[in-house]
Amino acid sequence: MGQATIRTTEVKNYVGQEVHLRGWLHTVRRLGGVVFVVLRDGWGTVQAVTESEADLLAVLEGGVSAESVIELRGVVVEMAQAPGGVEIHHPQVEVITPVTEPLPVIINKREVQAGLAAQLDHAVVVNRHPARRAIFRLAAGVMAGFRETLNRKGFTEIQTPKIVASATESGANVFKINYFDQTAFLAQSPQFYKQIMVGVFERVYEVGPVFRAEPHDTIRHVNEYVSLDVEFGFIENHFTVMAMLREVLAGIFVTLQEGYSAELALLGARLPTVPETIPHIHFSDAQELIWQRHGVDVRGEPDLSPQDERWLGEWAQAEYGSDFLFVPGYPMGKRPFYTHPDPERPAYSNSFDLLFRGTELVTGGQRLHRYADYEAALNRAGYRLEPFATYLEAFRYGMPPHGGFAIGSERLLMQLLNLPNVRLSTLFPRDLARVTP
Amino acid sequence: MGQATIRTTEVKNYVGQEVHLRGWLHTVRRLGGVVFVVLRDGWGTVQAVTESEADLLAVLEGGVSAESVIELRGVVVEMAQAPGGVEIHHPQVEVITPVTEPLPVIINKREVQAGLAAQLDHAVVVNRHPARRAIFRLAAGVMAGFRETLNRKGFTEIQTPKIVASATESGANVFKINYFDQTAFLAQSPQFYKQIMVGVFERVYEVGPVFRAEPHDTIRHVNEYVSLDVEFGFIENHFTVMAMLREVLAGIFVTLQEGYSAELALLGARLPTVPETIPHIHFSDAQELIWQRHGVDVRGEPDLSPQDERWLGEWAQAEYGSDFLFVPGYPMGKRPFYTHPDPERPAYSNSFDLLFRGTELVTGGQRLHRYADYEAALNRAGYRLEPFATYLEAFRYGMPPHGGFAIGSERLLMQLLNLPNVRLSTLFPRDLARVTP
Repeated sequence: MGQATIRTTEVKNYVGQEVHLRGWLHTVRRLGGVVFVVLRDGWGTVQAVTESEADLLAVLEGGVSAESVIELRGVVVEMAQAPGGVEIHHPQVEVITPVTEPLPVIINKREVQAGLAAQLDHAVVVNRHPARRAIFRLAAGVMAGFRETLNRKGFTEIQTPKIVASATESGANVFKINYFDQTAFLAQSPQFYKQIMVGVFERVYEVGPVFRAEPHDTIRHVNEYVSLDVEFGFIENHFTVMAMLREVLAGIFVTLQEGYSAELALLGARLPTVPETIPHIHFSDAQELIWQRHGVDVRGEPDLSPQDERWLGEWAQAEYGSDFLFVPGYPMGKRPFYTHPDPERPAYSNSFDLLFRGTELVTGGQRLHRYADYEAALNRAGYRLEPFATYLEAFRYGMPPHGGFAIGSERLLMQLLNLPNVRLSTLFPRDLARVTP
Repeated sequence: MGQATIRTTEVKNYVGQEVHLRGWLHTVRRLGGVVFVVLRDGWGTVQAVTESEADLLAVLEGGVSAESVIELRGVVVEMAQAPGGVEIHHPQVEVITPVTEPLPVIINKREVQAGLAAQLDHAVVVNRHPARRAIFRLAAGVMAGFRETLNRKGFTEIQTPKIVASATESGANVFKINYFDQTAFLAQSPQFYKQIMVGVFERVYEVGPVFRAEPHDTIRHVNEYVSLDVEFGFIENHFTVMAMLREVLAGIFVTLQEGYSAELALLGARLPTVPETIPHIHFSDAQELIWQRHGVDVRGEPDLSPQDERWLGEWAQAEYGSDFLFVPGYPMGKRPFYTHPDPERPAYSNSFDLLFRGTELVTGGQRLHRYADYEAALNRAGYRLEPFATYLEAFRYGMPPHGGFAIGSERLLMQLLNLPNVRLSTLFPRDLARVTP
């Protein structure tokens, strides 16, 4: 070590030259007198080929199996039928760290060869599988695209506390912490802090963990996830927020398209086109539409069901050719106390959901900004003001009309990649039964 | 609203033109028949001047005080003696959200006019003070510079779980969580996960919260902070890690210099020069040097005291003109179990501290990478293997020599800005007594 080495993704630039690579022994196969070795490094894989077993004694001897850490030297040769169009000839291999036991889950086939539980139990190893790690590389791309877009628009990144004195949005579904001599909680969201910080920076975003003690065991729930949070001031109403969300999603997809095409190709993912203006339909009109088109009377229901969302997704596709549909105007009753009502129809809110391919992806909206409105809303909801004292200080001392949204990173990837379970887009998922690995 | 507005930082580009701004009423002053109004928005401040009180009736009438949210229109005039070289004439002000009560802490003077406790109690408002918020803008710059530097070097950003099944590095100093039917903990660091992820991406970093239940009430401790974590594989030894840390710090300072000069100027901060190679002195040589230069025999002590660090900082400045000094080779006894020993002198470790201006800023080093070494180290430390089972899976199935480091974002800013207390570089600090705001 210490000598210049190249990455697997750089091999194609070294045709005819001797190169030096380091990584993991992904596979060894013998096929009609020829030995194929695939080395995987942190970025990709490359194949080495030889007819001389003597060259590869180090990895062909008993006791050195897949996932051993190796160094590989050889000459780069163009080879149209090889993966990536190049392969390494005259390979010489040295073993840095031998692995001597069979893996708990096979990770060198095209698909991970295990059920979901085994995959999650052995995520430490399974996340090395090229198709698995491509998901988490895309997760990095989502964060990067999110930040780049917002930085361009004058937003400031913040990191707000995760240990909080009281439940953020409701008393339920929070994890309790033994915090020295008192009880504290894990933040369900940075909602209060990002609003407070609009008073400081006008435009803020945060990428960080959020914690939900919801006792739900579904394909769409985990109890800790990465939230991409945005909040900004001086908006007209929730349509200003919707326009910003459109920009952010488009920015994320541009970043993925430009910097993560190998991962998208490996996963067979099709990136959606984000329309210049995402179509929208008011909550009450959406219910009317479902009644008209499908004969199911959901008018007056306080929320949309998953079936309603699928129907609306189909309608957006048919009517506008759009993967996305905004549904603004959810009834106030189902929204948190800080939600701004529609001034014209106060039973409806200036908040929205964004549906992506017929499933809710993002929730956002305009918030209350006047202190007196918070007093009234908290009283109406039956809360005491005192636990909200520091939050309310922001509104007592001058806040502009503002709003924002939160995107769940893992859910975005789940829907983008058509994964059957959000646990598969979560690096080390936490659920009702699981806090390891 | 809805009309085009500009930011305070853009006013200088509109000399002679009418502009429209929105923000907070920072100050109103009358001075010899002239009225000065300072508007603060999310990026800076601008002064408006008039001799006609009638223009400003909206903010001069009783009942509208500082921090009211306002709109301001007027004409931009060059004025050498005005802050920023421009001011607004013929101002017209409208109030969007009036503030009618005096602030709990005065935030429109050069310094925040309050003691530390009051500043922290009212951080929701105090963080609006231009000098306070400049600190947190720099915090965003530190994160940006950290990520940019590592992205260029092929690192992948990760977000690892904060709810963990067992204490990360030791059984002490962790916060317990009631996690459904079991007990879980808040992660003290992403140490185990970032090492595991070297097996996936080779080079990883994370920016996220860490939680320390240390019952210390000092100017340097808070119980939740933002950790900038790096870990990467295929290193030669800890000197490879020290070289990477040097690059990361230099990258952070370049980002601050290029993008955050207004904040640095406002805070009177001097950015350090990072030498091409940061000088280093082995732990045992450092103790010998202190004995030689200061006549205090600290040889054989297991750690450096704050006084030792100050002496070494002075020496690095005198000998090398460097604000930075690496001290590699800390005794194994004071380092965590995963620390790699020095192969030549196994009582010393391949780990280091980085001193900045005579105070420890970063800790890092080479880690063990062979499974058998972990078994031996855990046995030696008196731990059972079972709680570490999933962590150990990484080493059972092939890990390269690797290492990394962690920078505490708040401490970096504290030392960079010469702040008297780390709570002042923490957005909403958590300590023994404080979980609000």
